[in-house]
Amino acid sequence: MSGQVSDKPGAAAGKQVGVGLIGFGTIGRGVVKVLRENAAVIEKRLGFPLRMVRIADLDTKTDRGIPLDGIQFDADAKGLIADPRVDIVIELIGGYDVPRRLILESIAAGKHVTTANKALLALHGKEIFAAAAKAGLDVGFEASVCGGIPLLRALREGLAANQIESVFGILNGTTNFVLTQMEATGEPFESVLKRAQDLGYAEADPTFDVEGIDAAHKLALLATMAFGAELTFKEIPTQGIRGLLPIDFEQAAEFGYRIKLLGVARSHKLGGQSGGQADGREQLEVHVRPTMIPASSLLAKVDGAMNAVVVRGNAVGPTLYYGAGAGEMPTASAVVSDLMEIAREIARGGRGPVSPMSFLAEHIAPMPFVAEEELVGRAYLRMLAKDQPGVLGRITTALGAEGVGIASVVQRGQAGAEGGAVPVIVLTHPTRRAGLARAIARLAKLGDLVGDVRVLEIEEGV
Amino acid sequence: MSGQVSDKPGAAAGKQVGVGLIGFGTIGRGVVKVLRENAAVIEKRLGFPLRMVRIADLDTKTDRGIPLDGIQFDADAKGLIADPRVDIVIELIGGYDVPRRLILESIAAGKHVTTANKALLALHGKEIFAAAAKAGLDVGFEASVCGGIPLLRALREGLAANQIESVFGILNGTTNFVLTQMEATGEPFESVLKRAQDLGYAEADPTFDVEGIDAAHKLALLATMAFGAELTFKEIPTQGIRGLLPIDFEQAAEFGYRIKLLGVARSHKLGGQSGGQADGREQLEVHVRPTMIPASSLLAKVDGAMNAVVVRGNAVGPTLYYGAGAGEMPTASAVVSDLMEIAREIARGGRGPVSPMSFLAEHIAPMPFVAEEELVGRAYLRMLAKDQPGVLGRITTALGAEGVGIASVVQRGQAGAEGGAVPVIVLTHPTRRAGLARAIARLAKLGDLVGDVRVLEIEEGV
Repeated sequence: MSGQVSDKPGAAAGKQVGVGLIGFGTIGRGVVKVLRENAAVIEKRLGFPLRMVRIADLDTKTDRGIPLDGIQFDADAKGLIADPRVDIVIELIGGYDVPRRLILESIAAGKHVTTANKALLALHGKEIFAAAAKAGLDVGFEASVCGGIPLLRALREGLAANQIESVFGILNGTTNFVLTQMEATGEPFESVLKRAQDLGYAEADPTFDVEGIDAAHKLALLATMAFGAELTFKEIPTQGIRGLLPIDFEQAAEFGYRIKLLGVARSHKLGGQSGGQADGREQLEVHVRPTMIPASSLLAKVDGAMNAVVVRGNAVGPTLYYGAGAGEMPTASAVVSDLMEIAREIARGGRGPVSPMSFLAEHIAPMPFVAEEELVGRAYLRMLAKDQPGVLGRITTALGAEGVGIASVVQRGQAGAEGGAVPVIVLTHPTRRAGLARAIARLAKLGDLVGDVRVLEIEEGV
Repeated sequence: MSGQVSDKPGAAAGKQVGVGLIGFGTIGRGVVKVLRENAAVIEKRLGFPLRMVRIADLDTKTDRGIPLDGIQFDADAKGLIADPRVDIVIELIGGYDVPRRLILESIAAGKHVTTANKALLALHGKEIFAAAAKAGLDVGFEASVCGGIPLLRALREGLAANQIESVFGILNGTTNFVLTQMEATGEPFESVLKRAQDLGYAEADPTFDVEGIDAAHKLALLATMAFGAELTFKEIPTQGIRGLLPIDFEQAAEFGYRIKLLGVARSHKLGGQSGGQADGREQLEVHVRPTMIPASSLLAKVDGAMNAVVVRGNAVGPTLYYGAGAGEMPTASAVVSDLMEIAREIARGGRGPVSPMSFLAEHIAPMPFVAEEELVGRAYLRMLAKDQPGVLGRITTALGAEGVGIASVVQRGQAGAEGGAVPVIVLTHPTRRAGLARAIARLAKLGDLVGDVRVLEIEEGV
């Protein structure tokens, strides 16, 4: 230990720090496993043991399949919070209101907290961090974004000297698994999702993942830590992966791209050019959507349920962090690493010196958003056109009329296919979104199309 | 700040922490730039400013091309160390003896230290860390391994809950640039190296990089932080990239591999199977050498002067960290991030609670090495065989006689080429190195070969 005398129970006892777990599900079981299986290495790094002393869960019946010797296990969360043997409370029950209450009660009881609950933090983070700061307590949440990848520490400490220019990546393993499978098999979304559910990669209700909400929760936290931007996930334009067709993956490959559900947060200096200027005025570009990225980029190689995030700093340039973004043991790895950091502070009788959101609270404020229509980039357009004479000409003319340059046009299938309608794919040159939107409105008026135009943005700089 | 009263000058002054720089070369200039250009964001994260107050370098004449307003600049390193305005001394002069002395003098003077000098730490780290610990001071060295990538923090904190199973990767940008160019252009080593020197990617004397010594320095530090293994770079079997031929890259591509200079540190449980058991007996596999890795792996996509390292933990599984491993601004990013971490501790009047080498000093000890000949893996063999009847048969027979299974044999070129000798490439099945060594001895006795057999190990698990 640091040799300092401590005023906290764990270190007052002098020999160990006690943790209590609320919510004994998959991740909770992983935490118990890591604390036991890695007890020796944890003590060699910490200098003292880290002990699970108590677990609370409404379900005390189900056998979790691991020994709980020496651990008190009941349904009494309040009792756990009040238990003097508990220095750190681990919240792993999920949801919003109940964990919010339990975490605030833990802080009120003088207990440090760790959580993997990104949804909670994306909604109530400000309140929770303020309460903890006031009480001189720590809140660990590395596990809440990209599971086992030590990404938040990188933003908070490893890259602290940088003006962050952008943070973007694959923030959700379920959707990346589905996209990878759709690309590999050519199967439609529904059947691949079904298989992902059978394999346990997707929930019975996959809405949070598939609609991009989980990624938006994480991106909101990342944007605050990267730019000091105060925002909630509800402010993030979010598009899920439903509606992608096998043809989109085929065409992406032909054009040299892959399709990933990308969460992007980028700082724009006023004047438009990218690259944050912390002491100047800047605008925030932020969105979650299926995106085409160059097949040659590192991010494009991230397959299956894995996560990867690129962080660009004005000094360090691009950096990338890759690993398992979810799962019992990877998530537990992050939770227990947080416990160790907090335990060190308990042992020295203080709290972590680093601001949890990287910027001091007084420097976290709402940031103006970039107007989407001002963004410039290449785009992929997929439409179903009636097989009529001159249809391709009318489509390209409509695009040109709004200044949308065309890099490539592909008409798929044979005349008469799909009831006289054929898929038409357009790859544009870099174009302002406003012009693209007007062009798409024009296309709708032509009367040549069946259904809507599907747009996929292209990110080159990944 | 943490609200605690401090006994250190910087925080006693209450409003800033002062840093002094010894060694005003490229990296030093980057540090001055980052401190000035990012002053606003640094203060928003820190809560107080970080000021460069003094610089010492024997060369005070050369114009570094940046304003030094308010910074005292002379050749007086001793004066800098003694200067009460200096809370943290940055050592960036390189070499061994002089920086060692200056760092120990700084510690004796009660100053925290940061350095980017991996060679120094690989040789004198133990002595320096012990002195700092005794004095209650911090030594920051994130910049010493893989430049701007916050890799050491990941090992020390983000993955602290794990038993590390392996750490391996591309630790040297110069050699990765050369290998990438050789592969892309088909040119021989010497001409590519020459171009790398012209472009500033390689030193005039490239020995440290090309022979793998720089990578071994870094790997020694990584092995200590990952496994608590006490070792010096001199104990690491190290092989450089000289002697690789264009044909090796062509064949690697044909077999689905790429060639990278890989630093590998892996823990073997006794009994042979991989995966560290911190409380059990383990052996260390450690080496730096050109290695064939699957072209489909993320590591294989790391091109040019970039670095990337894979860290496998028993809970988190594989994680990867990618970024610029060298250069003025990326390295400065790591130095200044260290300064910020130390400045926080100065402000609270303490020192960092984390053991610099991740394990407490008393748990860092020599670790037995795995006997190389016991390792099992696939290998690539390149030899020049006299074009004589039955030569391929004799080669394959010699290999088979030592139990070396053959996955593929390729005879290149035409009869009569290269003075009657033709290149023969063999890809083996997984084989014990001992048997491979005996087989190669047999080949030498055949009298069919011109020159030696070149062996490249293959790492599948990357």
